[in-house]
Amino acid sequence: MIICNYPNGSKVQGKKYQPENFSQKKRQVIEFGKRGMSFEEAINQSNAYYLTHGLCVVHKKPTPIQIVKVDYPQRSKAKISEAYFKQASTTDYNGVYKGKYLDFEAKETKQKTSFPFSNFHQHQLKHMEAVLEQKGIAFVLLFFSRLQRVFYYPAEKLIEQYRTSKRKSLKLSDIEQEGIELTIKIAPQIPYLEAVDILLRTC
Amino acid sequence: MIICNYPNGSKVQGKKYQPENFSQKKRQVIEFGKRGMSFEEAINQSNAYYLTHGLCVVHKKPTPIQIVKVDYPQRSKAKISEAYFKQASTTDYNGVYKGKYLDFEAKETKQKTSFPFSNFHQHQLKHMEAVLEQKGIAFVLLFFSRLQRVFYYPAEKLIEQYRTSKRKSLKLSDIEQEGIELTIKIAPQIPYLEAVDILLRTC
Repeated sequence: MIICNYPNGSKVQGKKYQPENFSQKKRQVIEFGKRGMSFEEAINQSNAYYLTHGLCVVHKKPTPIQIVKVDYPQRSKAKISEAYFKQASTTDYNGVYKGKYLDFEAKETKQKTSFPFSNFHQHQLKHMEAVLEQKGIAFVLLFFSRLQRVFYYPAEKLIEQYRTSKRKSLKLSDIEQEGIELTIKIAPQIPYLEAVDILLRTC
Repeated sequence: MIICNYPNGSKVQGKKYQPENFSQKKRQVIEFGKRGMSFEEAINQSNAYYLTHGLCVVHKKPTPIQIVKVDYPQRSKAKISEAYFKQASTTDYNGVYKGKYLDFEAKETKQKTSFPFSNFHQHQLKHMEAVLEQKGIAFVLLFFSRLQRVFYYPAEKLIEQYRTSKRKSLKLSDIEQEGIELTIKIAPQIPYLEAVDILLRTC
């Protein structure tokens, strides 16, 4: 079960829920590109851009919820009155690009020299491994918020590093070498397809 | 907003929610294969079988929920106390098979000679169209509960029929001709990869 705190880190009883802040679990809102947008919103904007322009079809999966109780206060509207956040069993994003299956997770850190492995769950790595076995394209988008740098990092490398590294984090220098840095744009803000294209050309 | 009725068609105030029945929106529980399993459960079982055997990676997307209010009655557990069902913007299932992107929706009917178009939403057809443009494999699994027959029906045909037909439903005879009937098994119960293989061989 995911523990969901409010962006300022404190727990609030019955406070109005702000959907745009939900992704900011257990941490503060990190601004992306100083446009008042979170990293997740920037990815969603990029997905929307790609979809509108017929370039790829990638959607964020809904947050998995365990529903316990549903009321019907009105004739036409079912109201969920008791539910809990569940741990996702896959990554957050997937879709199709030129017939290829894309699958990725987006994570961010305030660290400046490394990316903690604690950002990734075992089941997500297992899922990415299964995707790779099926010849899908799996990766993570890593955002260093204080550096305002975004990297495309292949799942193959992440899994390898996670399994073999004696450290508790990925070194930025390794990410720079094994990943592809993305240049943040106006639209799409996170042009991840550029990295996919580079990898498809070299495969 | 989806209207969610209980399986018996009546609306109940504050009744304990049964997750396994949620998929049965606005209709009765239809047994699949007389094993006390719903069609959706049979597909989930098939996906689990395929995943375990390393044959494909397909998951059902979580039901999209609009969260309005979250309480923190305990230190470690966020409780959603007000939320509503949202209309999904894509199909329910997607994943990867031998590098190919798979995308499908599963529907059932009690009709015996045709499958009503009303089972499909505009946005789902639009999504399937976008997937096809990206060269993904999109289809629907159609279950005739009274006949206990399951068909793989390509999204291309569904979209064509939906746009051109003067009828309000797909004729079973057309489905028989343009689709692929799946033989229900013990495991996987709905062997949809067999139909994908047939289509990949002929493409």
